[in-house]
Amino acid sequence: MTVKTMHTEEVKELLHKVAGLHTEGGDARTKKIVHRFMSNIFQLIEDFDVTPEEFWTAVDYVSQLGKNNEAALLAPGLGMDKYLDIRMDAEDEAAGLAGGTPRTIEGPLFVAGAPLCEGFARMDDGTDTTSETMLIKGRVTDTEGNPIANAVVDIWHANAHGGYSYFDKSQSDYNLRRRIKTDAEGRYVAQSIIPAGYGCPPDGSTQRLLDLLGRHGRRPAHIHYFVEAPGHKHLTTQINLAGDEYTYDDFAFATRDELVVDANRVEHSAEGARFGVTGPVTEVEFNIELVRTDKADLQDRHARPRALEEATA
Amino acid sequence: MTVKTMHTEEVKELLHKVAGLHTEGGDARTKKIVHRFMSNIFQLIEDFDVTPEEFWTAVDYVSQLGKNNEAALLAPGLGMDKYLDIRMDAEDEAAGLAGGTPRTIEGPLFVAGAPLCEGFARMDDGTDTTSETMLIKGRVTDTEGNPIANAVVDIWHANAHGGYSYFDKSQSDYNLRRRIKTDAEGRYVAQSIIPAGYGCPPDGSTQRLLDLLGRHGRRPAHIHYFVEAPGHKHLTTQINLAGDEYTYDDFAFATRDELVVDANRVEHSAEGARFGVTGPVTEVEFNIELVRTDKADLQDRHARPRALEEATA
Repeated sequence: MTVKTMHTEEVKELLHKVAGLHTEGGDARTKKIVHRFMSNIFQLIEDFDVTPEEFWTAVDYVSQLGKNNEAALLAPGLGMDKYLDIRMDAEDEAAGLAGGTPRTIEGPLFVAGAPLCEGFARMDDGTDTTSETMLIKGRVTDTEGNPIANAVVDIWHANAHGGYSYFDKSQSDYNLRRRIKTDAEGRYVAQSIIPAGYGCPPDGSTQRLLDLLGRHGRRPAHIHYFVEAPGHKHLTTQINLAGDEYTYDDFAFATRDELVVDANRVEHSAEGARFGVTGPVTEVEFNIELVRTDKADLQDRHARPRALEEATA
Repeated sequence: MTVKTMHTEEVKELLHKVAGLHTEGGDARTKKIVHRFMSNIFQLIEDFDVTPEEFWTAVDYVSQLGKNNEAALLAPGLGMDKYLDIRMDAEDEAAGLAGGTPRTIEGPLFVAGAPLCEGFARMDDGTDTTSETMLIKGRVTDTEGNPIANAVVDIWHANAHGGYSYFDKSQSDYNLRRRIKTDAEGRYVAQSIIPAGYGCPPDGSTQRLLDLLGRHGRRPAHIHYFVEAPGHKHLTTQINLAGDEYTYDDFAFATRDELVVDANRVEHSAEGARFGVTGPVTEVEFNIELVRTDKADLQDRHARPRALEEATA
């Protein structure tokens, strides 16, 4: 049975009070946003004739989502991080700050405070002796091709099982997480192991909703980057290794054409040899262009709750 | 800076994919509801120019809400339970099932399986010797005044500190929770202690948002009821004790005029004397009218995740 009550004074007054619009105290912006948000939810319940059983299932879903610590995993799965990127791209465009290497979503698995190395870092702890060695190399420049020395390239990626250190307690601290300072020519090199694609926890809240949407919860093999240098826009991005089944079907909508890179197996890496890496490796090249800006707030990563963030502020 | 991107094909396509509208699998109703819900959120972000920092604060809020186990407490605070009641009242009206004692919200603190007593129950465990004794009495009838024998009146309420057994681990099992079967004349009597009003946990997620809305998180002293009898609509309701500061300013919007009852101090209770309750007590009378129905699904309480529900199915 479909009943309509949204037009009644009773419901309008309820929404007014819910948002605290009848009180002096509180935060005016929060009140307006909550009023809109709750009006939308009430209208949705009316339009779809949502039953109390469905409603309480949704409340329980939110509860489980928090307990599973998956709110920040569901968000990219529901396209929210991608949407924020679209908006930030449009803002950059409007402000004359477009260009450079494209941004893409951060994801929920960054951990601040990884070891800081000069020019080169070995990222893996050496315990995985079966995975192929990967050598990432690249240069950080401005949009005119001038090298940026002492840029900090903060890289993190999954192991061969799609797990991230800190969250996957079987890994050593900061395994596959390093910060590398570029050399005088803007170069950075990282030795690591090839990451596997990531899948949402199969019994988690995110996958449960994705199942109902007929969607998978897979990401292609990828490598996360924060890149920063004084006088330049902070860059949050990722690269995807070409050829992955999910490269163009990422559940988190993070893939961008400019960020898909080839992985080339070579018997001998000249770049690796500079740092004592011998034998066959899979080489990945990712050069980064940063956009100049004087605005201080654009030179840092966005504030958001992160694991261990406070330890390295 | 305000940018508009909702009109773009990129955002429309993103929302389409987010909701799984491009796939065959999944549940069609969930897809439609998620598409609406996410479209509303995206539009809200655009209209209010929500920053990434604000967005991640909201995601973290949801996460904490689940961890605090307060999703089902925030829901009534945001008027959702009241709104569902308004809708169910309208449905009853349309179905010719209006009348009887009004429903009001259940709240999140019901625990199934309370001891079942015949006609009379003492609800408190006797450990609180300082609170005033309360005697609740009443009759369960149909809407024509005919007594209903063997109706089950399931009552639960807070102690003198606003705490509920099971959730407040300092209380004994099922303290202040009893099921009472009405006698041949439809009567039930409960001996207990006067409950205090309830306040949201001061450091919890619900209170945190209420503070931003300039709202308090208080409920007046109240007593919860489920009442059921074969052939009658299940009733979920509460009574408020008249004279409480928050009787008409309940953060959960549960008060209804017909459900505000007087609490009268008497030196001698005739009703109490029948069950050996002597000395001064505060008497509360609450008579209940149930509406006849043959519909089986209306004779049970709504399904929702509840503490211990499965133990007594």
